[in-house]
Parts: sequence; structure tokens; C-alpha cells
Amino acid sequence: MEGFEFYNPTRIIFGRGEHKKIGNYTASKGLKKALVVIGGGSVERIGVLDAVLSSLRHSGVEPYVLRGVKSNPLLSKVREGIELASKEGVHGVIGLGGGSVMDTAKAIAAGVEMKRAGKDIWDAFTGRADIENALSVFTIPTIAASGSEMNGYMVITDEVSAYKLAAGSIYVYPDISILDPELTYSVPQDYTAYGGVDAVCHLMEPYFNGPYPYTPIQDAISEGLMRTIMDAAIDCIRFPDSYEYRAAMMWGATLALNGLTKAGVGEHFFPVHLIEHAISALYDVPHGAGLAALLPAWMTFFMSRRPERIISFSKGVMGIVDDVGVDQIAALGIKAFSDWLKRINAPINLRDIGIKEDALGSIADNALVQARIWGMKDEWDKDAILTVLTMAIDWREQ
Amino acid sequence: MEGFEFYNPTRIIFGRGEHKKIGNYTASKGLKKALVVIGGGSVERIGVLDAVLSSLRHSGVEPYVLRGVKSNPLLSKVREGIELASKEGVHGVIGLGGGSVMDTAKAIAAGVEMKRAGKDIWDAFTGRADIENALSVFTIPTIAASGSEMNGYMVITDEVSAYKLAAGSIYVYPDISILDPELTYSVPQDYTAYGGVDAVCHLMEPYFNGPYPYTPIQDAISEGLMRTIMDAAIDCIRFPDSYEYRAAMMWGATLALNGLTKAGVGEHFFPVHLIEHAISALYDVPHGAGLAALLPAWMTFFMSRRPERIISFSKGVMGIVDDVGVDQIAALGIKAFSDWLKRINAPINLRDIGIKEDALGSIADNALVQARIWGMKDEWDKDAILTVLTMAIDWREQ
Repeated sequence: MEGFEFYNPTRIIFGRGEHKKIGNYTASKGLKKALVVIGGGSVERIGVLDAVLSSLRHSGVEPYVLRGVKSNPLLSKVREGIELASKEGVHGVIGLGGGSVMDTAKAIAAGVEMKRAGKDIWDAFTGRADIENALSVFTIPTIAASGSEMNGYMVITDEVSAYKLAAGSIYVYPDISILDPELTYSVPQDYTAYGGVDAVCHLMEPYFNGPYPYTPIQDAISEGLMRTIMDAAIDCIRFPDSYEYRAAMMWGATLALNGLTKAGVGEHFFPVHLIEHAISALYDVPHGAGLAALLPAWMTFFMSRRPERIISFSKGVMGIVDDVGVDQIAALGIKAFSDWLKRINAPINLRDIGIKEDALGSIADNALVQARIWGMKDEWDKDAILTVLTMAIDWREQ
Repeated sequence: MEGFEFYNPTRIIFGRGEHKKIGNYTASKGLKKALVVIGGGSVERIGVLDAVLSSLRHSGVEPYVLRGVKSNPLLSKVREGIELASKEGVHGVIGLGGGSVMDTAKAIAAGVEMKRAGKDIWDAFTGRADIENALSVFTIPTIAASGSEMNGYMVITDEVSAYKLAAGSIYVYPDISILDPELTYSVPQDYTAYGGVDAVCHLMEPYFNGPYPYTPIQDAISEGLMRTIMDAAIDCIRFPDSYEYRAAMMWGATLALNGLTKAGVGEHFFPVHLIEHAISALYDVPHGAGLAALLPAWMTFFMSRRPERIISFSKGVMGIVDDVGVDQIAALGIKAFSDWLKRINAPINLRDIGIKEDALGSIADNALVQARIWGMKDEWDKDAILTVLTMAIDWREQ
């Protein structure tokens, strides 16, 4: 096990109807004014926004609302939120929605403090400035996917430069996140599937790319969570109003990226996320769909780098027991994974999401910019990225 | 999944040689004076105490030392520490040792604040007072076992009344715990085994007793950790100086009782710990040895209450795949578990630790006092406790 530091100060409140108590929780942290960030309006239609606003007012917290965060959330919306939060002098930001909404809330919380210090929030994404403070962050996720509710990461797209970049800071860990599985009943089948793919991919990246050769604790937890989330995704699609399946999906997705499974596996990158961010920055496909379209090809490619990890995955997650040689076990494992993608109606290659050969060069160039910012361009250079993309165009089971 | 709250603010620093940086970490929290609590002297003999004291002094933290904490730690030693810490005006308490030392450090940290408020620390154990504040707690565990390094629990024995009781508070979560697997190389074979049994039992109690019927996330994590810790215990005994096996054991034991696996399984008690605390309060056997002596009988007894959990354990942890009927799978699972106990030279029944029939009545009476304090006497009354104890006297595989 590689040396590590693990610290996750987010308080999780999990259960039915808990979102209606957000007022108590924010008031307990001393908030008097809060900015509530939402997306396209579904939380308004199903009455969740009203419940949240009325809980806040009831607890003496004056709410302001920022509407219209899109998936692949935009820097311009973050800037709009920073202006509003600064003008109204709010003490905290509540992200009520999916990963895009929560990430926008975090970026606003950090951006207000950066603005106060004469800095610009985008510099935290390009590596030109550090986040040194933030308003209090609270989240109420409405989809099981990003894990943003229990970590210090955020991903934002600058629509001017067309780069989708990630930033992280201890200051944007949510103080409190309320996980209420009932809020996810209305997530449609496709986004339920994409959320499952995203959560599984959050587990896969450290599992495959963490360089440390002996990590039995991390492997056991990651494999167990992958199996459980994959089952839960199928169950949630079959029974969208099942509290139990939605609860398993929600807690699984949260634990998938809360730092637990990456602690101790050694320094590693998120290459599938890297390439996907380039795809969704340029083509605005849902993040989970982009990941699904890359994963079978990426795993096939990765056999040439660390076959032992693909073998472990095939046995420990996909349950392949055949004793038929390394390549065969790996092929069966990757096939079983693509069967899961098909079963939840997710893409298995780039053609499934409408991306063709002529797009690959610009996707690779875009990904390389991020690879440079993350310091990972030695391991994931343009050749490697283009190879994965080319294999992903028409990937099909061997 | 039952509703739950999860909050664990302890920062973990994991790695080789990290204990030599304790001065930096305590100074970063503003400490000027710290009380270092140790046990019987092994940390002095192997030079660890010197390294810790010199790191503290180097960072401008003046250390005071409380020596002589015994296993099954005593209230009188806690009181001695409260006096010393109060007199010297220390700002934090560092537990450098095993679970007994860490629990004593926590009790001193809470006890100093209770004394200041005119209250007595033992009242927090008997339920007559709440802990409302504590000095900063830091821990440097020297054995993988109790999990005290990442939770808010402590167990103390009052030698006058002969009761071993537990207390818990958010205020005694360590601020920072330094996990350095090298410090556990010198743990002898028997205590390495007892530590493994303790950690596995911390996972078993919520796994078996949590009443919620559908907890796939918790089951996956618990089963994975149990398997890994059981393997690591065997490996650590074979290769006591292996960094990798000691690291797996150490992180596994920490995660086994940090609140993660109990969150969502519903309200439950720790009946095996309850009965064992009575045994070690009266007979001063090592806690892990007492647990081992009870577990096979307890699991056999528990088949009459929740056979489905014993079946899950047999399949998910012990790898029993035989499709031979419920009772047979359970019997094979319990046998496989007792085989593991034998393999690490742990007891499998009460006779192995020198306890005979004539002791059972007083053990049960002692356990009942704790059962009343915990509010669990309806489910675990004297009859149930005596039945488990009687089965444990000469338990052997079916």
C-alpha cells in the first residue's frame, strides 16, 4: 500500500424526506442567506425546490435562486452565480440537482472568495491560482452519478475556449450533503444508466491506474462497490420507484468517489475521464454516455499495459472463473462488461453516440491540453489517446 | 437501507515513518503542550517514544508522558491522566499504543473538560452524563485491532465495581491519526491474531445484527474487509516484518470500525462484545481472545435468530458454494471460520481460555448490567446470554 492521507469532513444525512430539513442543517451552520443552485427546472416541476425554499425560510435562512445550470456546466453560469452571491452577500451555496449543479455550486462558493481576493475562478481550473477559501457548500443530489456530494472536485466547461477542466480543493467539500433516494425516482432510464456508468468508472480509474502492486483492501472495496452498483443500475431501470434500489445506487455512487478507494493505490490519473471530457466539451454528449462509449475499447487497450488489472477485474467484478488463459479471461471480462452496458441501454462504442473518424484528431488535441494541466502527458500522450479513440470507433466484442 | 447519518472527521496519515512527524501535525493544530499516553514500555524499548517526544519538542510542543496503561484499561489510570493533564494545562492528548492506550487518551481528553465543568468521566460511561467537549485527541496505533484511531468510542474498566463499559462522543474522534505499519512489526503472534479477530468481529456485529433486510453496499464492503483481514492475519503471522501485510491489516482494522459498515444497517447492538467485556472485566483475558472463544458458539446460536445472515456470511466471506441446504451451508461456514481461528492459534471455545461452567452465572450477570445501560436487554436477556455462554464452553465443529 502506498502512503496516503485520507480526510473527508462531509457530513452525510441519508434517508427518505431528509431534503425537507435542509433549513435546520444550514441554520445549524450559522447561515442567514443561501444561494440555491438548480438546473433545468425538473426540481421545480416536482415540487422539490419549493420544499427546500420553504424549509430554508422556516429556519430563518433567506434563499436566492440561480436557475439554468446545464449538463456539462458552463463557466458563464458560474460567473453569473458569483455575481449574484457576491451582490446578495450569501454565506453559503446549496447545489440542488445533479453533478453539474453541485459542481457549479462549489465553483461559485470558491469563486466568491477568489473574487474578493482579486482572483478569477477559472485560474483554479487551469492551474494558475489556488483556492484558499470558499463559502459553505451544501448539496442535495437528485441523481446517483457524480459523487460530487462527498468530495472536493468540480468540473466546469469554458464555452469560449471549449475546454472542460477539473479543479479540486479541501475548501469545497460540502459541509453537509443530504441524500434522499426518493429524489431520484424521476431520473429517466437513460440518465439512470449513465449515472451508473459514471459511478463505476470512478471506481475503475484508481482500480486500473493506481500503480501500487498490492492493494487488497482497496481492491476488495472497489470490486464490491462495482458489483453492487452494476446490479443496482439494472434494478433501478426495471423498478424506477424502488426506494431500496435507488438507495443502493445513491450510496454506492457517493462512496465511489469519496477518496476511500483511491487512498493507497499510488499516484494515478483518470485517463477515461480525460478523453471523455474532451468529447463532451466538443460534442455535448452526456458524460456517462461518453464514458460508456470509451470503456470497452479502453480496457482492451489497457491489456497491453497492465493485463493483471484487467484479469483481476474480470474475476473479481465480472465473476469470470474460466481457467482458460490470461487473454481469454480478459476478453470474457470485457465482453461481460459490454453486455452490462447493452443491458442498461448504454453505448458501447463511439459510433453509438454519433462520433466518427474525422472527429478523433480534434478530440485528442483537446484532451492533450487537459493532460498537460494534470501533468499526465508522458503516460497519456497523443499517440495513446488516438489509439484508444480509434479502437473505440467501432469497438465490438472479440 | 435504513436512514443514517455518517460523519467521520478524523484525518488519517498512513505510511512508513510518518510517526516521526507527529510534532508537525500537533503544532499545525495549535498545540503547545501535549500529554503522551503509553502502555507497558514496548514503545520505549523500540525507540518509538523517543522519536515521538523529539518530534514534538522539535515543533515547539512540550510533551508530558503518562505511562503504564494496561490492556483492559483502568479507570484509575484515566483519573491519573486527568489530574496530570489538568495540572500541566495540556491542549491535547496523544495515544501512542494499542486500543487500551488510545481509549485511555480519549477518556482523559474528555475527562479534563468534564472535570472543568464539575462532572466525573465515569458518568459518561454509565449514562449519567454527556460528553460536551474534549481536548484534541491524536493517536499513533501500534497494533491493528481496535479501530479506536478513527472513531469516537472508548472502553474503560472500573476496577472497583468490575464493570467494563463503553462510551462514545463526536468530541473524542481523533483530529489526526498516524498509521505507520512498521510500528506493528513487533506485535507478537498471539496479539496479531487477537487483533485480527477483534477487527473481524467489529465487522460481524453490524453485519449480523443490523436488522435492515436489504443492505447490499454495506454487505459488499463488510464481506470484502472480512476476507482481506482474515488473509492478512495469516500473512502477518507468517511474515511479521512484511510492510505490505501489516499495512493491509492496519488499514483494514481501521476501516472495520469507522462507522462506514454500520451506516444504513439499522439500529443494532454488539452482543459478542457485550459478553466479552464481562469476561475480560472478570478474568482479564485479552479482548480478542475472549471474542474468538465466543464467536463460533455465538454464530451457531444466531442461526436460530437470523439464519439468512449466517448463510450470507458463509457464502460471501468463507466462500462456501455447496448447494446442500441451508443448515449445511451454515455449518460449513462456521466450521471454516473456526478453522481460521485455529490456523492463527486463537481459541475456539471458553475452555481454551480457561473458563469453566461455574463462571457462567457471574459473567452473565456482569454482561446484563451493560446490556441495561445500552438498552439492549430485551433482545439479549440473561437466558440468551447464558445460552451462548453454555454453548461456548466446549464448542466444537458440528
